[in-house]
Amino acid sequence: MGDHTTPSLAAAVSNSGGLGGLGMWGFSGEEAERRVAGFRQQSGGGLNVNYPLWDHAGDLTDIGGPMRKLVQALYDSKNAGPIPEPKASVGVVNQEHLAMLEKMRPEVVSFHFGLPDAETMDAIRSLGIFVISSATTVAEARQLEAAGIDAIIAQGTEAGGHRGTFTKTDISMQPGLFALLPQVVDAVNVPVIAAGGIADGRTIAAAIMLGASAVQLGTAFLRCGEAQILDAHREALRNASDDSTVVSNVVSGLPARFVKNRLIEELTEPGVEPLPFPAQMAFMAPLEDTGDGAVAPLYSGQSAHLTREMAAADLVSTLAEETNRCFSQY
Amino acid sequence: MGDHTTPSLAAAVSNSGGLGGLGMWGFSGEEAERRVAGFRQQSGGGLNVNYPLWDHAGDLTDIGGPMRKLVQALYDSKNAGPIPEPKASVGVVNQEHLAMLEKMRPEVVSFHFGLPDAETMDAIRSLGIFVISSATTVAEARQLEAAGIDAIIAQGTEAGGHRGTFTKTDISMQPGLFALLPQVVDAVNVPVIAAGGIADGRTIAAAIMLGASAVQLGTAFLRCGEAQILDAHREALRNASDDSTVVSNVVSGLPARFVKNRLIEELTEPGVEPLPFPAQMAFMAPLEDTGDGAVAPLYSGQSAHLTREMAAADLVSTLAEETNRCFSQY
Repeated sequence: MGDHTTPSLAAAVSNSGGLGGLGMWGFSGEEAERRVAGFRQQSGGGLNVNYPLWDHAGDLTDIGGPMRKLVQALYDSKNAGPIPEPKASVGVVNQEHLAMLEKMRPEVVSFHFGLPDAETMDAIRSLGIFVISSATTVAEARQLEAAGIDAIIAQGTEAGGHRGTFTKTDISMQPGLFALLPQVVDAVNVPVIAAGGIADGRTIAAAIMLGASAVQLGTAFLRCGEAQILDAHREALRNASDDSTVVSNVVSGLPARFVKNRLIEELTEPGVEPLPFPAQMAFMAPLEDTGDGAVAPLYSGQSAHLTREMAAADLVSTLAEETNRCFSQY
Repeated sequence: MGDHTTPSLAAAVSNSGGLGGLGMWGFSGEEAERRVAGFRQQSGGGLNVNYPLWDHAGDLTDIGGPMRKLVQALYDSKNAGPIPEPKASVGVVNQEHLAMLEKMRPEVVSFHFGLPDAETMDAIRSLGIFVISSATTVAEARQLEAAGIDAIIAQGTEAGGHRGTFTKTDISMQPGLFALLPQVVDAVNVPVIAAGGIADGRTIAAAIMLGASAVQLGTAFLRCGEAQILDAHREALRNASDDSTVVSNVVSGLPARFVKNRLIEELTEPGVEPLPFPAQMAFMAPLEDTGDGAVAPLYSGQSAHLTREMAAADLVSTLAEETNRCFSQY
């Protein structure tokens, strides 16, 4: 979950038996190195570095007019000033990042929205790094396996944040974790990591029953003190119910799950498309700066109600205890 | 799943350790009695009788013009003749059905789309019948419990057939089973039955880990010889993948999950609404009569790929064996 993750959060997770992760969404190679170095100072454990991949370069000056109007109305109501001018960008693991990976050697690199080109994949794998990526359908899992991935994250529709979808499958046809996970496990030979709706021992035990080799939790760690999120975001997670969230592309340009709030409602209008990912996200920073949960993006999965406010190390050990207790009943 | 269920299917399930179910969707009291009698002839076990509830009476003559045009185009392409004239109706457990319940005493009555009025509920409960209904959100589960229900079916978004939703919650905000089930279990004190995506021992074991007291399988039994479905429907289930299905209201007027086919695609047009449930369903019989899986409704959950073609009794015992094997690993 991008910059919600911090070196302290990742270190606390890795120090207590999990595998901590650091999102590298929009960070330069230098910033990425600083983040990994921060982790290394606090932990001798394994680290997972996550890259989103996109390719939407091009001049954005004249596109997204109707969306800019909706955004401007929201800014005006919050006195957030003029809206920023989004810049075109490409999300790749460039030479700067490859040099960082070679120097810092994170144990795991994960991707979102597919995989990089074969050359970059080879370069990363030649460093001995374990490479994983997300699949939201069996077809995507098969594609990842064919590309030589080491493990696959099966991301159910319950998951908070961005859908990892890299084929054209409509969100309305994507399976929930209960259906997705066993079908991915059956379809591929690499280990499968379950994601989406996992927040306590019961959900971990259920994922293992469905064939998962590991689980990935996102929203559950957002309420840890080490996560960098707005107080209003924490409050929204604390108050969320099972039907508080929605998948929308109005925050970033690609579908992601959020607590539904005024931001989502007012930027959603039939026929009005967001700017291409991640250009649309440029509109969000001034809204986040207001600190107002009504207009800030509130990333969340469907199990927010099961999450708890505790230190990350305590959460990891609590999850382990709960999971063991589930299995010891049988 | 309405008339896909047969007395033979329900009897085979109940005779092999499960609880067989008979849908009473659109059946008269007399027809319902004949169905229950058919079950009793073949089984001394328990029976679950299912009623959908609706209230959309009124003159339909002049409504649904744009939808009728889409339907007519489909009929024309299949030489299915003029389209039937849907009749208004109300779905209640009327005196005729209450008399049937009193005479035949099915062990369980389940409802879809909420609960009947308090008087009807009392009448059914005074017969000693166990009453259950479906919830697609925690809020719905709480409403059912407050109304004195004996158990609640937590229906995840993975489920085939009609969403049991009886509040206005949009399908896009409804949780997958992995998120819904534990949150319903936490919210209510009555037993919770898991539904949606359950098709083999792994999925049953996972549902139990999430707190389910029982599981309900629909799509998994459609491929049994005892189910009354088109050959083309069986073939569609055999060939389905995890992302073959979609939730649509164009078949009946209410959202249900189907294998996406030409029927769904051609009746889906922005701004074109179906007739109110279940009037829209009147258009389906002549299309089903063509036997063509492209234009017949193909009810299916997201785990169709995990289902198997076998006799219902074999399926029940296979599911039990598989589930035991899952637990014996730990």
